[in-house]
Amino acid sequence: MNIRIGSGIDFHRLEEGRDFWLGGIKVPHTKGAVGYSDADVLLHAICDAMLGAACLGDIGEHFPDTSNEFKGIDSKVLLARTNQIIQKENYRIINIDSSLCLQAPKIKPYVQQMQKTIADILGLTEKDVSIKATTTEKLGFVGREEGVVAYASVLLEKLEENNQ
Amino acid sequence: MNIRIGSGIDFHRLEEGRDFWLGGIKVPHTKGAVGYSDADVLLHAICDAMLGAACLGDIGEHFPDTSNEFKGIDSKVLLARTNQIIQKENYRIINIDSSLCLQAPKIKPYVQQMQKTIADILGLTEKDVSIKATTTEKLGFVGREEGVVAYASVLLEKLEENNQ
Amino acid sequence: MNIRIGSGIDFHRLEEGRDFWLGGIKVPHTKGAVGYSDADVLLHAICDAMLGAACLGDIGEHFPDTSNEFKGIDSKVLLARTNQIIQKENYRIINIDSSLCLQAPKIKPYVQQMQKTIADILGLTEKDVSIKATTTEKLGFVGREEGVVAYASVLLEKLEENNQ
Ligand SMILES: [Zn+2]
Ligand SMILES: [Zn+2]
Ligand SMILES: [Zn+2]
Repeated sequence: MNIRIGSGIDFHRLEEGRDFWLGGIKVPHTKGAVGYSDADVLLHAICDAMLGAACLGDIGEHFPDTSNEFKGIDSKVLLARTNQIIQKENYRIINIDSSLCLQAPKIKPYVQQMQKTIADILGLTEKDVSIKATTTEKLGFVGREEGVVAYASVLLEKLEENNQ
Repeated sequence: MNIRIGSGIDFHRLEEGRDFWLGGIKVPHTKGAVGYSDADVLLHAICDAMLGAACLGDIGEHFPDTSNEFKGIDSKVLLARTNQIIQKENYRIINIDSSLCLQAPKIKPYVQQMQKTIADILGLTEKDVSIKATTTEKLGFVGREEGVVAYASVLLEKLEENNQ
Repeated sequence: MNIRIGSGIDFHRLEEGRDFWLGGIKVPHTKGAVGYSDADVLLHAICDAMLGAACLGDIGEHFPDTSNEFKGIDSKVLLARTNQIIQKENYRIINIDSSLCLQAPKIKPYVQQMQKTIADILGLTEKDVSIKATTTEKLGFVGREEGVVAYASVLLEKLEENNQ
């Protein structure tokens, strides 16, 4: 069967006064995520799920934080490159589901724009990019607003060579 | 391909002297989960996985804790409604797998009843509803019995319109 | 559709001076994982994902820590047995994706050997066994190097009886 599963998970610390990039857009908040790139936890989890499904390594391998090239980089660029990497192996995304775990802010007002942003980069429709959100009910480091976690799941389809 | 992946995650605090609803049944224990509804972490994770696979929002959007309608509600009702929501879009569940992370009690004696309860609500057989459990080896807030986490994964199939 | 999803999660404590078994190989490190078996968190998550997809219980049910048989056992044996369990029900693995969450050491140098080890046991190719790794950015018990977590996702295909 020409179908494959992938799942990704990503973590970032939150700090006061930082920009908070989530799902490719800047979310207004008093805190933001810290990282080598723009620290977009959702896009990173999606990249990792795509790479995992295709068995092509992980985000740390393709975009190492030891490379100046990726310092402060817009994760939308990483997502586009990840898509090129899997396309070269004839993979096509069937659908993406994802979950953001963060205590604040409410991200529902931004979800549709995130879906559109991600779908546009990946050549999908918004109905193929699901983004859900939950708090941890104040439990753990997410509940203390020290960090944010994202989970992503993806199905890929392998296109036949002669269909190319 | 008419198949879609979804995954859900849910968190609830544990408190002494509360009923502990898990997988649609009341599990005997000194603590129970706290929440706006009956706080059934497993059913919530399954609802979110179903909604995510269908790209129809999340549980917080469909059953908001700002609505009196859902205060103290039996999560089996939420699961049945979630099923109606995805059926309206011609989705059918292929299978569900789930993992409960909790330090205590042992839930194995209750798993079969949970499977039957969930399968009956969703029109599935018990072989299509897997429930696993693990402790966190006393690590983190789950290990300190401050909270409970559930993960669920689901595959949906989109039925052809002319098959209806 | 003869396809099923499974997902597994496993946790182990880390202690100084222990062997650190991960993905079937011994990883050089000052700490190692503690458990009833060899505490291989990655192989356990994969076993659980396989059992969950087939709806055949979980690792704690098949290999209980109340049995002397499994004390200190090599988890590669558990993986091989799990494969026998699902094969008996005519299931075949399509692909595995996994994520290791640990703060140290860097596991990238060992990933290919882990992939080969797992693929050989399961009768797969290395391209069907993805292993990714991430730190938690020093957050939580993983970030404090108190423990390690692994997530695994799997797709199974049910073979037709008359294909056997
Ligand atoms: Zn990241
Ligand atoms: Zn809940
Ligand atoms: Zn284990």
